[in-house]
Amino acid sequence: MDQSIKVFAPASVANVAVGYDILGFALEKPGDEIVARFSEKAGFRISLITGDKGKLPYEVPKNTAGFAAYSLLKHLGESERGIELEIHKKMPFGSGLGSSAASAAAAVFAINVLLGSPLSKKELLHFAVLGEQVADGAYHADNVAPSLLGGMVLIRNNKDLDVHTLPVPDKLYASVVYPHIKILTKDARGVLKPDVPLDKVIQQTGNMAGFIISLFRSDFDLLSRSLNDVLIEPQRATLIPHFYQVKKAALDNGAIGCSISGAGPSIFALSKGKESATEIVNAMAKVFSDQGIQVEKFVSPINQSGAIRL
Amino acid sequence: MDQSIKVFAPASVANVAVGYDILGFALEKPGDEIVARFSEKAGFRISLITGDKGKLPYEVPKNTAGFAAYSLLKHLGESERGIELEIHKKMPFGSGLGSSAASAAAAVFAINVLLGSPLSKKELLHFAVLGEQVADGAYHADNVAPSLLGGMVLIRNNKDLDVHTLPVPDKLYASVVYPHIKILTKDARGVLKPDVPLDKVIQQTGNMAGFIISLFRSDFDLLSRSLNDVLIEPQRATLIPHFYQVKKAALDNGAIGCSISGAGPSIFALSKGKESATEIVNAMAKVFSDQGIQVEKFVSPINQSGAIRL
Repeated sequence: MDQSIKVFAPASVANVAVGYDILGFALEKPGDEIVARFSEKAGFRISLITGDKGKLPYEVPKNTAGFAAYSLLKHLGESERGIELEIHKKMPFGSGLGSSAASAAAAVFAINVLLGSPLSKKELLHFAVLGEQVADGAYHADNVAPSLLGGMVLIRNNKDLDVHTLPVPDKLYASVVYPHIKILTKDARGVLKPDVPLDKVIQQTGNMAGFIISLFRSDFDLLSRSLNDVLIEPQRATLIPHFYQVKKAALDNGAIGCSISGAGPSIFALSKGKESATEIVNAMAKVFSDQGIQVEKFVSPINQSGAIRL
Repeated sequence: MDQSIKVFAPASVANVAVGYDILGFALEKPGDEIVARFSEKAGFRISLITGDKGKLPYEVPKNTAGFAAYSLLKHLGESERGIELEIHKKMPFGSGLGSSAASAAAAVFAINVLLGSPLSKKELLHFAVLGEQVADGAYHADNVAPSLLGGMVLIRNNKDLDVHTLPVPDKLYASVVYPHIKILTKDARGVLKPDVPLDKVIQQTGNMAGFIISLFRSDFDLLSRSLNDVLIEPQRATLIPHFYQVKKAALDNGAIGCSISGAGPSIFALSKGKESATEIVNAMAKVFSDQGIQVEKFVSPINQSGAIRL
């Protein structure tokens, strides 16, 4: 058994226009790294956090990765074992790219590998979601599941973690821009009305169904028609300045679709092929930089691996 | 060119628990028959209606089949041609089994065949929906599309008729009971609240996604978990006496799922294999007959043919 394990878990895009709280996909980069190792000292602890500008707590129950790892260790009857965790944040907080989910996914994956992989990735999911819940308050897997499992993931039901990895057409690429604007997930949730009009629900449900069909049939035209959020995006777009200009820039440059990543402020677009995705991300980023807003950009195929050992 | 054409279009189950207004499937029986023939007398007319107990109008613009056929003839520049239509209703009205849709689908299919099939079935769909609109007031294809095209059909968007025929697992059977209770579609629509809670929408969208995935993967367990209507059924079930007992009878006898067919009062269940479907339909029907309510029952695989020439 190895004495020390280093893993990576990627960022993810949740909601994906048509699947509020139940759909997400993993990016190749950015992501978080976590080291888990056996230690002489009994019990579980967080020994080091880097890249967080001092913002993350060392107290296990308050730390996403810490609580996820501890919950898993408790389940395995190993909570008294001497194990320490290093958390290396390599991606931005509050970006809408599943930063806390990446930490939680990496944490449970690292612990599991360290202990000889007693559980499957799917079995680990519950514990990662418990960690994510520390940051987000809600038990949902739309970031954690893709970060851990990889791929495009549908969570039919968050409560039961009824998760399904969907087929992804060859050449499907994501372009993501993260403008340096602050939006808290709880504000992004707060802006949503508790009720939605039935006619919009019918449209959105049709779009979700069309989205799933398009993936199984590699039908990019149907994917494009389906990637249209009539429920959540109109409510949240107000929180992101220049959102509609960025979306227009993406679509004008050939994007299949474009919407808010998770609770924002990051914005994602999907397209066919890396070259197109690169042009799109540049056009999207230019809207923000022209306004003097600092912006990070990422281009990635759908990451099929999820959490991996480094 | 034949001088006379006789066709059949089948009944259908719309909504299918998770796809209010956007999902439907065709049954093998019952259904309507329509005869279209050339006539000496110029212009289009309805020459005979049987099986309707005198309820259906002969005036073309007021008759579902008549208006569908006339709309198609006008589109083809053949509205002055001497053509007459016989409508033979062979299925109940107001049953929630797409009676008017079957007539509309049969009408356009008959006219098209009579004229040497200038259009594809998909091209005919718009005209059949125009006919259905006469009966229902709304332009939607959740009964017409399966009745015409056959199969399990998702209508991503009714306005654009973006329709998709879904794969259906072998041995998927429908059990349908039609209790002789009167519900008008407009009453069934009237009972629905214009807004729905977002948390229920998330559940329903997850179920729709799960439903589609289950069909592509022939996953009966996922189909069963997904076939759960948390939005519409709770509102409409009150219109159908003994609904929950019938549903329980279906599920207790091995049904994968059970819900209201269209606007009701018919109730459908899905199951695996004809034998199971027959047991289920008998158990469902018994609940009504024990209460002294007359009930018709149907067992059918998913009809893959839709409208056919007889």
